[in-house]
Amino acid sequence: MRFLSDNAASVCPEVMEAVVAANVATDSAYDGDPWSKRLDDTFSDFFGTRCRVFAVSSGTAANSLALASLVPPFGAIVCHREAHIEVDECGAPEFFTGGAKLLLCDGDHAKLTPESVATGTAAMRGDVHQVQIRALSLTQATEYGTVYSPDEVAALAGMAKSRGWRVHMDGARFSNALVHLGCHPGDVTWRAGVEVLSFGAIKNGGMSAEALVFFDESLAEDLPFRRKRAGQMPSKGRFNAAQLIAYVESGAWQRNAAASNGGARRLAAAAGARLTHPVEANEVFVDIGSNGDRLRAQGFNFYDWGAAGSGEARFVVSWDQREEEITALAAAFAALE
Amino acid sequence: MRFLSDNAASVCPEVMEAVVAANVATDSAYDGDPWSKRLDDTFSDFFGTRCRVFAVSSGTAANSLALASLVPPFGAIVCHREAHIEVDECGAPEFFTGGAKLLLCDGDHAKLTPESVATGTAAMRGDVHQVQIRALSLTQATEYGTVYSPDEVAALAGMAKSRGWRVHMDGARFSNALVHLGCHPGDVTWRAGVEVLSFGAIKNGGMSAEALVFFDESLAEDLPFRRKRAGQMPSKGRFNAAQLIAYVESGAWQRNAAASNGGARRLAAAAGARLTHPVEANEVFVDIGSNGDRLRAQGFNFYDWGAAGSGEARFVVSWDQREEEITALAAAFAALE
Amino acid sequence: MRFLSDNAASVCPEVMEAVVAANVATDSAYDGDPWSKRLDDTFSDFFGTRCRVFAVSSGTAANSLALASLVPPFGAIVCHREAHIEVDECGAPEFFTGGAKLLLCDGDHAKLTPESVATGTAAMRGDVHQVQIRALSLTQATEYGTVYSPDEVAALAGMAKSRGWRVHMDGARFSNALVHLGCHPGDVTWRAGVEVLSFGAIKNGGMSAEALVFFDESLAEDLPFRRKRAGQMPSKGRFNAAQLIAYVESGAWQRNAAASNGGARRLAAAAGARLTHPVEANEVFVDIGSNGDRLRAQGFNFYDWGAAGSGEARFVVSWDQREEEITALAAAFAALE
Amino acid sequence: MRFLSDNAASVCPEVMEAVVAANVATDSAYDGDPWSKRLDDTFSDFFGTRCRVFAVSSGTAANSLALASLVPPFGAIVCHREAHIEVDECGAPEFFTGGAKLLLCDGDHAKLTPESVATGTAAMRGDVHQVQIRALSLTQATEYGTVYSPDEVAALAGMAKSRGWRVHMDGARFSNALVHLGCHPGDVTWRAGVEVLSFGAIKNGGMSAEALVFFDESLAEDLPFRRKRAGQMPSKGRFNAAQLIAYVESGAWQRNAAASNGGARRLAAAAGARLTHPVEANEVFVDIGSNGDRLRAQGFNFYDWGAAGSGEARFVVSWDQREEEITALAAAFAALE
Repeated sequence: MRFLSDNAASVCPEVMEAVVAANVATDSAYDGDPWSKRLDDTFSDFFGTRCRVFAVSSGTAANSLALASLVPPFGAIVCHREAHIEVDECGAPEFFTGGAKLLLCDGDHAKLTPESVATGTAAMRGDVHQVQIRALSLTQATEYGTVYSPDEVAALAGMAKSRGWRVHMDGARFSNALVHLGCHPGDVTWRAGVEVLSFGAIKNGGMSAEALVFFDESLAEDLPFRRKRAGQMPSKGRFNAAQLIAYVESGAWQRNAAASNGGARRLAAAAGARLTHPVEANEVFVDIGSNGDRLRAQGFNFYDWGAAGSGEARFVVSWDQREEEITALAAAFAALE
Repeated sequence: MRFLSDNAASVCPEVMEAVVAANVATDSAYDGDPWSKRLDDTFSDFFGTRCRVFAVSSGTAANSLALASLVPPFGAIVCHREAHIEVDECGAPEFFTGGAKLLLCDGDHAKLTPESVATGTAAMRGDVHQVQIRALSLTQATEYGTVYSPDEVAALAGMAKSRGWRVHMDGARFSNALVHLGCHPGDVTWRAGVEVLSFGAIKNGGMSAEALVFFDESLAEDLPFRRKRAGQMPSKGRFNAAQLIAYVESGAWQRNAAASNGGARRLAAAAGARLTHPVEANEVFVDIGSNGDRLRAQGFNFYDWGAAGSGEARFVVSWDQREEEITALAAAFAALE
Repeated sequence: MRFLSDNAASVCPEVMEAVVAANVATDSAYDGDPWSKRLDDTFSDFFGTRCRVFAVSSGTAANSLALASLVPPFGAIVCHREAHIEVDECGAPEFFTGGAKLLLCDGDHAKLTPESVATGTAAMRGDVHQVQIRALSLTQATEYGTVYSPDEVAALAGMAKSRGWRVHMDGARFSNALVHLGCHPGDVTWRAGVEVLSFGAIKNGGMSAEALVFFDESLAEDLPFRRKRAGQMPSKGRFNAAQLIAYVESGAWQRNAAASNGGARRLAAAAGARLTHPVEANEVFVDIGSNGDRLRAQGFNFYDWGAAGSGEARFVVSWDQREEEITALAAAFAALE
Repeated sequence: MRFLSDNAASVCPEVMEAVVAANVATDSAYDGDPWSKRLDDTFSDFFGTRCRVFAVSSGTAANSLALASLVPPFGAIVCHREAHIEVDECGAPEFFTGGAKLLLCDGDHAKLTPESVATGTAAMRGDVHQVQIRALSLTQATEYGTVYSPDEVAALAGMAKSRGWRVHMDGARFSNALVHLGCHPGDVTWRAGVEVLSFGAIKNGGMSAEALVFFDESLAEDLPFRRKRAGQMPSKGRFNAAQLIAYVESGAWQRNAAASNGGARRLAAAAGARLTHPVEANEVFVDIGSNGDRLRAQGFNFYDWGAAGSGEARFVVSWDQREEEITALAAAFAALE
């Protein structure tokens, strides 16, 4: 039973149907097709404000193109020490930005706070010997499946703006966060000060497209060139655009995230005091002690987490996870010695 | 009637079916699925030699990652003055290589010759004040729809090797070239000295994946890192791998290219002396003089080519082009005054 | 007798004395010393307008930092096909800009004209598939020792501005051009539309510093960071600043350039019809036919130029060239068969 | 009285005389002169092994070019959290390497240990989602004026080699470290496993040249191109080479470092228990509590260190520091309440 990653899940019907339906010859290639042209409107409606949207082929590309739009090569980006852009993108932000630096700040459960950002950047100076902080990147939901509230985002974004930094949100699991919060999508993004959002779809039932959403259109001016130059403007762009439109307009984003969040909540209840982080999205971090082998023998796949021998493990619930798998894992958690 | 670009064509049934069929949850994400793991074998069988293959999301990404594997930042790449990597990739090769240069050589019908390469590189020196040529990039079929024979490739690749240059082939329309040549795929690639091939599928019935094929596996050592770092390793890699496997194994590559090449030949016959380049693949360049408006009024879409007012136009036949569209355009050509 | 390059000449007394005089301990390092602080004033006086000036350690660094300030990574820079930035800087502009492209235009005697620029850039489009022209770079004096008049610069810069391009001047031999023109330094730079100038000193009696001059201070905003990041902000900056101040304020720039220009004129008179380019600065290009070995046997060092066997040779006169060397070479020219 | 930085000190007589003596016209520019040609021999004699040496214009350039020779763009470099390459070079290593990352490890007094490196890199994996560690960079003397013994270097370098990492030493204050150790220069470099050394001269009586020393010549293969491309190959290279030859051959490196180390020792004795780091080179870190204003009122210039209000201050002794300045500061230390 696969609890390794939501990345291995299937594609939800609405998205797959949209791909199939997009298979008609069009008058023009790249972004000249009707689907691609509708992207801005679809997301503008969703967020309740005018957006400029680009489809890209991976979360890494979305994040890196976003950051390259926000900081110069001598810039720095503040993020959590465990952020995906730092840990798991093979230096993509450095590549796309021309060598900017990530400045790592701490915070419980992979969440930054104004205090942790203040502390983590206290030693930075404005002189020419140092890179210059130009952006803050928040992950929503975080690497530990926790979620920033609109107020928390606003506090961090407000701090960023007061210092002249731009605000990016890595929303690889944005739908899961949104479902947890139950708020309007605008509340936790542009209304709270986010300027650019990597809006993930793939982990939550999508296939091969993520949306890069600019709430401040002036920041998107160079993006078309950077995107093409990065090999991220496919000639049959309609297949990616169609996925994103279906994902948003059909409500699949919500239904899928509700399913995986719900499964995670059931696991959390079963894990009880063994939880190492609050469960607010679809990831469950559990102190399984020395039960790893036993759980694997029972057929569960998952990642050990933290330092070797820490006894911590990560279980990710996918949107298409079967009910009985959740039940089985919950029972296994309850039976942990 | 769309003769603008094969990029706007539909996806062929085999490829689309493979996408649909790949929609099962898998044990692991990225390239850990069965389709991705089969890529090397599929292409190794096709080419008759052991290959290492990577799926990427665009031809620009394929070309640029290939070149970044072959040349250092202070390197140079010899290509035709009208090569796609020079003209239409928004500087992607420069981005991926860390700033290498393209050295432009001439040649009729967008084909390089040993002589034109010798002439075009004669002024380059080995001293430290200049970038150092480290690779040759050939386009097959070329920007003008012409095709290098195995002997022509071998002559150019032999010249390259004697000078210590690596050999890359941009095969965005490789299937069209192969169908024209009627030879074994290995004859015009690795047997002729090509070390890395961008094997295009999208223009010829594919959806969103191109294959980057290394015939010399040692050159692929860094590629996985460069690919991830470029945002070109999607988490649901199986959908891309499945497209490429279907494209190659079903024979769709051949049937589709035969269809578009055949359509182009019919157009070529009708255009007769107005052709400005030999028609060997699926592109037809015609001197339409001042008939542009008339042809467009008849419902034909195409690009004007060359300098403004040159009277030259490009017509690209897609694999799914309807018979009657070909017939209509052929008739229109025959009726040109 | 060395006519290979003015790069091998000695340092003039004023510059060397300034270096020695700067050898006092200072209160602060980098650019905090009195010499560095005076740079802007010195050059502002010289040019008759407010400038922002940075000392760098080579012409390559000056040019590349200038261009990186003017164009984004997806930008392009128009220059002459034989410009130093294209031919002899090992791809430094590509490195510093993050992979921008140079677009090569033609023109007699290495001089661009509005017509040649229009022709050379006619095929460039504004769409996302191509790099975007953002700057024009002129070389003054050119690679062939010819000089743009203020009107010629103004025509080219005006054309650039009308298209939204910035204007850079590579003035590795700017003093030689200025002495030839006899005009005010502002006339052929900022008054004619030049925004950034690489003002060379090293070839004309300097030691190890070139000046990067911004006439539009707003363009210099990022430069301090780019310069530091490139390793071009030495800790004992006063030694470089002192050289530049002495070079400009003492009038050495003028006396030295007058000397080398004068020597070149004498050689030009002797070479007569054998000249392959007008002699307007300190470089003399001569068709020496098959006399190369003979001239070398007479003790003259120089570079063969152009294609192998072309019979063309380049003779550069240095500011400290001895009178008798000029006389001897002039006599040798006169005696050529 | 300046205790801000040894960077603001004067140039020692031997170096300045060498500059003046190098002012003769030479046959060829760049590195073709007799001084540049002698660099390898001079340093090979000094280190007791064959070296390949390049003069560059700053420590930042030396470090960054070294690292670019050792790691690919997707590589990572292990260094101390407070290393100069991390803190004070405006992202130059990222720029020169094409976006590699620095991995920060801890250690008392800015010194790494095998344990701190093991801990700091424990979470790094070899998979494609992460940058790959390819080099270790040690600073000798460290940012806190402490010195690695040959055994300490050997232990760290041995660990690095066992993991396939290259070893770089940032020796901005290498002479100070060497004088402290009293060992042969080879003992703490190549014999201990260092492969590339940034050998600083400027802080210790030099003017405008640092030496980049390759003990493994095969690693230097690309360096000439990278150096030229970075604008670090000046046309009158003899002035830089001459400085470095004089610095090494005259013994100025030793005399100057002995002077500043000696001054620092006197200050250390006076500071006593207020020292926050051992004094092993020419830097003295003192807990001055709330005496900062008083010391400044007495005429001492220095930097506050650490977090605001920490009470820590840094005093750097220069090679040319006047005896009475040391005496005065020592007295002031002794009088601290």
